[in-house]
Amino acid sequence: MASQDKPSGNMLWGGRFTGGLDPLMVHYNESIYFDKVLYKQDIQGSIAFARANAKNGIISQAEFQKLEQGLLAVQKEWETGTFVIVPGVDEDIHTANERRLGEIIGKDVAGKLHTGRSRNEQIATDMRLWLRDELHAIEDHLRAFLRVIAARAEQEIDVIMPGYTHLQRAQPIRWSHWMLSYGFAFAADLERLGEVIKRVNRSALGCGALAGNPFGIDRDMMAAELGFDGLLWNSMGAVADRDFVAETLQWGSMLMQHISRWAEDLIIYSTGEFGFVRLADAYSTGSSLMPQKKNPDSLELLRGKSGRAFGHMAGFMMTLKGLPSTYNKDLQESVEPMLDHVKTVGDSIQIANGVLATLAIQPDKMQASLDPFMLATDLADYLVRKGVPFRETHHISGRCVALSEQTGTPMNELSYAQLKAIDARFDEDIADVFDYEKSVEMRSAKGGTSKSSVLEQIKVLKAMIG
Amino acid sequence: MASQDKPSGNMLWGGRFTGGLDPLMVHYNESIYFDKVLYKQDIQGSIAFARANAKNGIISQAEFQKLEQGLLAVQKEWETGTFVIVPGVDEDIHTANERRLGEIIGKDVAGKLHTGRSRNEQIATDMRLWLRDELHAIEDHLRAFLRVIAARAEQEIDVIMPGYTHLQRAQPIRWSHWMLSYGFAFAADLERLGEVIKRVNRSALGCGALAGNPFGIDRDMMAAELGFDGLLWNSMGAVADRDFVAETLQWGSMLMQHISRWAEDLIIYSTGEFGFVRLADAYSTGSSLMPQKKNPDSLELLRGKSGRAFGHMAGFMMTLKGLPSTYNKDLQESVEPMLDHVKTVGDSIQIANGVLATLAIQPDKMQASLDPFMLATDLADYLVRKGVPFRETHHISGRCVALSEQTGTPMNELSYAQLKAIDARFDEDIADVFDYEKSVEMRSAKGGTSKSSVLEQIKVLKAMIG
Amino acid sequence: MASQDKPSGNMLWGGRFTGGLDPLMVHYNESIYFDKVLYKQDIQGSIAFARANAKNGIISQAEFQKLEQGLLAVQKEWETGTFVIVPGVDEDIHTANERRLGEIIGKDVAGKLHTGRSRNEQIATDMRLWLRDELHAIEDHLRAFLRVIAARAEQEIDVIMPGYTHLQRAQPIRWSHWMLSYGFAFAADLERLGEVIKRVNRSALGCGALAGNPFGIDRDMMAAELGFDGLLWNSMGAVADRDFVAETLQWGSMLMQHISRWAEDLIIYSTGEFGFVRLADAYSTGSSLMPQKKNPDSLELLRGKSGRAFGHMAGFMMTLKGLPSTYNKDLQESVEPMLDHVKTVGDSIQIANGVLATLAIQPDKMQASLDPFMLATDLADYLVRKGVPFRETHHISGRCVALSEQTGTPMNELSYAQLKAIDARFDEDIADVFDYEKSVEMRSAKGGTSKSSVLEQIKVLKAMIG
Amino acid sequence: MASQDKPSGNMLWGGRFTGGLDPLMVHYNESIYFDKVLYKQDIQGSIAFARANAKNGIISQAEFQKLEQGLLAVQKEWETGTFVIVPGVDEDIHTANERRLGEIIGKDVAGKLHTGRSRNEQIATDMRLWLRDELHAIEDHLRAFLRVIAARAEQEIDVIMPGYTHLQRAQPIRWSHWMLSYGFAFAADLERLGEVIKRVNRSALGCGALAGNPFGIDRDMMAAELGFDGLLWNSMGAVADRDFVAETLQWGSMLMQHISRWAEDLIIYSTGEFGFVRLADAYSTGSSLMPQKKNPDSLELLRGKSGRAFGHMAGFMMTLKGLPSTYNKDLQESVEPMLDHVKTVGDSIQIANGVLATLAIQPDKMQASLDPFMLATDLADYLVRKGVPFRETHHISGRCVALSEQTGTPMNELSYAQLKAIDARFDEDIADVFDYEKSVEMRSAKGGTSKSSVLEQIKVLKAMIG
Repeated sequence: MASQDKPSGNMLWGGRFTGGLDPLMVHYNESIYFDKVLYKQDIQGSIAFARANAKNGIISQAEFQKLEQGLLAVQKEWETGTFVIVPGVDEDIHTANERRLGEIIGKDVAGKLHTGRSRNEQIATDMRLWLRDELHAIEDHLRAFLRVIAARAEQEIDVIMPGYTHLQRAQPIRWSHWMLSYGFAFAADLERLGEVIKRVNRSALGCGALAGNPFGIDRDMMAAELGFDGLLWNSMGAVADRDFVAETLQWGSMLMQHISRWAEDLIIYSTGEFGFVRLADAYSTGSSLMPQKKNPDSLELLRGKSGRAFGHMAGFMMTLKGLPSTYNKDLQESVEPMLDHVKTVGDSIQIANGVLATLAIQPDKMQASLDPFMLATDLADYLVRKGVPFRETHHISGRCVALSEQTGTPMNELSYAQLKAIDARFDEDIADVFDYEKSVEMRSAKGGTSKSSVLEQIKVLKAMIG
Repeated sequence: MASQDKPSGNMLWGGRFTGGLDPLMVHYNESIYFDKVLYKQDIQGSIAFARANAKNGIISQAEFQKLEQGLLAVQKEWETGTFVIVPGVDEDIHTANERRLGEIIGKDVAGKLHTGRSRNEQIATDMRLWLRDELHAIEDHLRAFLRVIAARAEQEIDVIMPGYTHLQRAQPIRWSHWMLSYGFAFAADLERLGEVIKRVNRSALGCGALAGNPFGIDRDMMAAELGFDGLLWNSMGAVADRDFVAETLQWGSMLMQHISRWAEDLIIYSTGEFGFVRLADAYSTGSSLMPQKKNPDSLELLRGKSGRAFGHMAGFMMTLKGLPSTYNKDLQESVEPMLDHVKTVGDSIQIANGVLATLAIQPDKMQASLDPFMLATDLADYLVRKGVPFRETHHISGRCVALSEQTGTPMNELSYAQLKAIDARFDEDIADVFDYEKSVEMRSAKGGTSKSSVLEQIKVLKAMIG
Repeated sequence: MASQDKPSGNMLWGGRFTGGLDPLMVHYNESIYFDKVLYKQDIQGSIAFARANAKNGIISQAEFQKLEQGLLAVQKEWETGTFVIVPGVDEDIHTANERRLGEIIGKDVAGKLHTGRSRNEQIATDMRLWLRDELHAIEDHLRAFLRVIAARAEQEIDVIMPGYTHLQRAQPIRWSHWMLSYGFAFAADLERLGEVIKRVNRSALGCGALAGNPFGIDRDMMAAELGFDGLLWNSMGAVADRDFVAETLQWGSMLMQHISRWAEDLIIYSTGEFGFVRLADAYSTGSSLMPQKKNPDSLELLRGKSGRAFGHMAGFMMTLKGLPSTYNKDLQESVEPMLDHVKTVGDSIQIANGVLATLAIQPDKMQASLDPFMLATDLADYLVRKGVPFRETHHISGRCVALSEQTGTPMNELSYAQLKAIDARFDEDIADVFDYEKSVEMRSAKGGTSKSSVLEQIKVLKAMIG
Repeated sequence: MASQDKPSGNMLWGGRFTGGLDPLMVHYNESIYFDKVLYKQDIQGSIAFARANAKNGIISQAEFQKLEQGLLAVQKEWETGTFVIVPGVDEDIHTANERRLGEIIGKDVAGKLHTGRSRNEQIATDMRLWLRDELHAIEDHLRAFLRVIAARAEQEIDVIMPGYTHLQRAQPIRWSHWMLSYGFAFAADLERLGEVIKRVNRSALGCGALAGNPFGIDRDMMAAELGFDGLLWNSMGAVADRDFVAETLQWGSMLMQHISRWAEDLIIYSTGEFGFVRLADAYSTGSSLMPQKKNPDSLELLRGKSGRAFGHMAGFMMTLKGLPSTYNKDLQESVEPMLDHVKTVGDSIQIANGVLATLAIQPDKMQASLDPFMLATDLADYLVRKGVPFRETHHISGRCVALSEQTGTPMNELSYAQLKAIDARFDEDIADVFDYEKSVEMRSAKGGTSKSSVLEQIKVLKAMIG
């Protein structure tokens, strides 16, 4: 890399530096190897900028057309994989595109492209354009996942399983109720995502390095051409604002938390001991040592990647903390976490969708895991309906549980005499309480696990998917 | 604490436990010493729940009235500081309130309060009610702070100071422009806060332990009484959802990041070397050893507490990660970070407001720190207007900078001949470029630092404050 | 708080401030309500400092004795709960102690205590002394927990249970082997803790505000009196160094991660579906709604508090990030996380100890959960011993698994003919493979689950406990 | 990727899967594209494992030699860049190496390599070997950096600059004292690194999937061949333990915090307003818009990357939280953060070294920034030496400061009469106090900024570098 000892004439600030360069520093500083993914946004932004400068008379219409054609030619090179990055010269995507543009259309006109523009506004524009489009794609993935949830919830509404609190069997619920509990969390993610996109999709173009554009550029016209929803209103803020990244990372971290909890449930439900679900082979893997193993690797990766997503967010918030205002080079550290985060989240939603779409449930195992003790609340409620204060019924039911444990008799097989001995207010119809389906159907208030309540939830969820 | 060896009859689940208690475990488990702050919300929620049960006929109207009066009596004890917590018995605010209610109105009626209700839905309701009100108060603090920013920006619009990028002098800007750059960040916080509140203010009441309410309770009626904006739609999700806390913590962490950056700027501006601002004595402190010191402690605490706020969020997201669905006791760890976060953020906004409202600026120091090199872009722009490609003008201006450095002549004192020697296209009117006010006024595109652009920003900001 | 409008004459820097105070700022700034816990360390440090100044002749021996007696009198007030904090005046523990000292022995002598000393070195000294002692107490808790692990591992060595990978049944193991797997993680925590303490226990006393002590104070003498292991070698570093806090928080976060994983296993093992363990009542709680519930609250709190501990660390590292050198007020934010972290970690280890010490295991349930498929590796190993390449044996064993699944015949009940048909190299002694105890005993290499290997591990672990 | 619909026969667990594969899942699951960096460690580990199996008689000596030659041939392919990854088949480095080995030496012998081994122990071994070597390289970088610090501190010991607390001028210090304040922080990093390496360098080989090795493999022999310092003592723990990664990430995060604070100081010192230092061109960059700019990009990147390093740690600790014991696929998420962290930290130390080694200091600017107020403590100390209590001297000195501010007379130019009027105990020799060099030399206690103290520090630091 001896040729890099002196800064090349193509480096944007080349005019006055006299010292040598440290090859490691060149590498530490350059961003081309990751920000090249923004090539198209960079070119679109440049065309919009040039068009606005032409409108202002800063460049001529002919110059604009030359710039536009040249930029589109550069774009084609990227698209066809023929663009050749010049190591040590093309330090970032902006430099690379402009260097190549100059080679294609000549430096005289190419040298006018950057008039009144700063890389500070340029990278902010590129990142916002890219992220907006990616987040729209993620919206689609999320909607597709929610549709699978709603469809399965509708179809499998008759399956009853144990509901847990503290991972202890609590009360019987519908399998659909479980699915919908996550459905509403993901629907809230969808709602939040719309709010995030609204703030991502704002224009920094025309803000200069920090103080604004000195050629009276028409920022509204550029924003409209690029599909932005509006302007960032202060040039100093606009060039340094990476809240759109931080907010995306916060959003994705929360979504991945939902996925981690969903995966945790399914991992437990797919153990030999629970056995409620079986993953499709496509989402499982075997063991290199143990021939019988079928491991829920997909779910474990989903759970594990919630850490990775959180790390992007925590790391980038650390980078932002205490920075002075406007652009500081620290902000270059916003690009890589954004890229990896978007990929991690987008892939994870699709994998979760695939897992759920192909998951086999084992209703007989769910049924087998129901336990008469799960009806202890219903036993208490029976007495409540006879006017006994709940606190008292809770103790009475507790004594029935204790008797069952002491005698080893399942609670639903305790004799009427045994129950009557515990509390005289038990009548013979107490036997009707020991029915899981009935217990489920009792929970018919809004949001409950009865069939009608679950159907209402599905309707609400579908409306949220849009 | 010998009397705690056996669980007391007042413990809600007391019926069947037989073993002793570990005093440290009692303490580790109990939440009364922090969740007592929710006493009022707990009582309001209980009244709404009892009213709905009375409507359903689960309890009689007379019983409801007794419950309501009793609960209001308990509330009065809290308000007057006469409520006595019974250590080891009142493990949480729900238990404490119900224990005391029973003492006041008798256990027969008090024992009906909890009919069909679970502490799972109760704590979620209490937290949401409390947080909603606190966030509304924070909205007010934030609006007050924004009003100070807008007012100062309007009044001090004529003050010009150096604008920095990379903390190096870059271009002259208006002091108001700097203030507004943060103003728009805080205005975005205000916008986001409204979105967060919308999701905080949803009702979990009537969801039971996980499966729903078995007595057909009217959830809409309770939600309306408590001022909720709507229901949480799935009972399993509703009792386990702490996203409203996580989202608040994410929101507050980002706001505190803005404060940390704002404070960082002001700490640097208040050094002896910069000297642009002087903090009021009320927001400074001295040194125990060095008599001359006047330290910007307020700003340092603001910056430092951005870490504390982030820690709440990072810690609580860690707590949530990978939890199985519905209620797990881990969720008790959501209360303390929420309480401290809300206090930290609310106080910090008010302190920031006080600092800014009493800050003295030193316009002469700002003026003195302006440097002719900050007009190098204007020099390049001058040639742009003569049709020279920007890339070329950038190099020419760079050579002027180099000449100034080599000769030790300030750039604005280079002779016309010296400049002409560098590039023949310089005319005598080049001298007009060396005017900071003119440079500022050139940046008149939207979002720029010219007076008209800054005034427009103030108007936009005021509209956002509402 | 009207009397606080003007700074009190007792504020350490009182001489030159003229403005009023914001009551909220007074509160935001003061640390007395949490740093009072350091009262004793503050007094010990002051006595050592005064003694060293007496040795130097900066104060007389008589003055030293007066100071020492006065300081001990202040200490007694704290110890007996009679110390009265003066709100708005006693902003921190140093100010409070010196204010009270002046009242007891007169300001003339008390006013000499702080000669050449800065609160910067003082708070660092107080925190290090306090933390050192607390970490030694935590060492003891950790050793006690490890002793329970070793003792149970020894006593219950004959109990065999399913070992899991990916939470899927993998191979049979000893229950003791499971306990020891965590034992070695906690033993590594103990090793690390010793290293942390070594760095905590270094002296900052005699470093002044930043530049060092101007009266030639004998730092070694003070360090020896206070039990420090050595000096911090650079005064600027010494007053600003909070790495001893950060390192403690990192250490505790990792320990709590181990506890979170240990708790996760036990929560799963205590479900109805697994049923391997039962928590003592002392470490469980019931449900306010469901009479039958017995929830592993202790384990859930342990798992949840791993988030809180991580939050301390993440938050405080955020506070430290990018701070300028020496003391900045941001560092006040080091105290509260340290206090809560130490309490959280210390309590958690003791709770974990209590849980394990009282845990009942259900060997029959463990036995029942063993599954012939868990011997599939042993089946492959059988053929390996006959010279078949492992990769081939792995496939053969896989076909046996498949046949068992297809026919619904447990693998250990497949007929010799069936196995022979899959691979002719099976001999009749293949039946001997289907023995869990034998499988366990085969793993006799170091670190394995055979009895001899487990006994060796116990010996190694005991040596690490010391 | 149609050919990937069915799992290939080369997939390690291929025997029993019947379903199709989701191409996205294949990609989501595979690690070859990042764990290929471990190719050499994987091969070394395999050779050691095969040799131990040969010793045991599980394979013959001839087979071992064939395996060893084949593995070395595979290694050569990696080293010469001729290894061809088979997409969708070579899911990880272990599979890839074994697949290729089989092609080279035939499946009969290659199929014996994995006898009694699990990928769980294999990846742990590979990662530990790799990390150990990388951390040793980082040790070297750190020592080199410390040597630059010590050398500059020695050479530039006579340069005096303002010392700051709260970023306000506090007391004069030596420039070397500032450098050493960070030197000791980095020396502590070096000490900690040694402790981390000790725990990284432990052997998991011979632990099987979780339960241990069933062929009595000699783990000590393998550990010795691979240069490990000792064994991991419990097979379940060994395969799941990623604390060696977490601990490395914690270590690196703390080191990067030191770098962030060091960079922050230098960024401030290189502003136009401070002007104490100038970065070499090699570590600065210019602006695309502003010709005069010379930005400290290297320092900003160093500061910014402290966030990235923290993100690795925070993210991975999130991944670990609450995992069940032994291997879970979540642990695959340990590899990428480890790789990027090690690169980030290693590069950053070298960049910091380059920055410091080429930094130009501006002693005249440092001198110019000294301010007589910085001697206010010395003024107070003057009276202390006359027996006045420090608290009183502090107030007297404060009044001198106030008089200077009110009259606009620099404190060192206040007349003797003016001082005498403030306190009669001032004598004429008070003029001697106003000497920065003298002030610095007064701080001669250990750790202070006097020349002798600084020289002692350099000696201590050199001893720590080793």
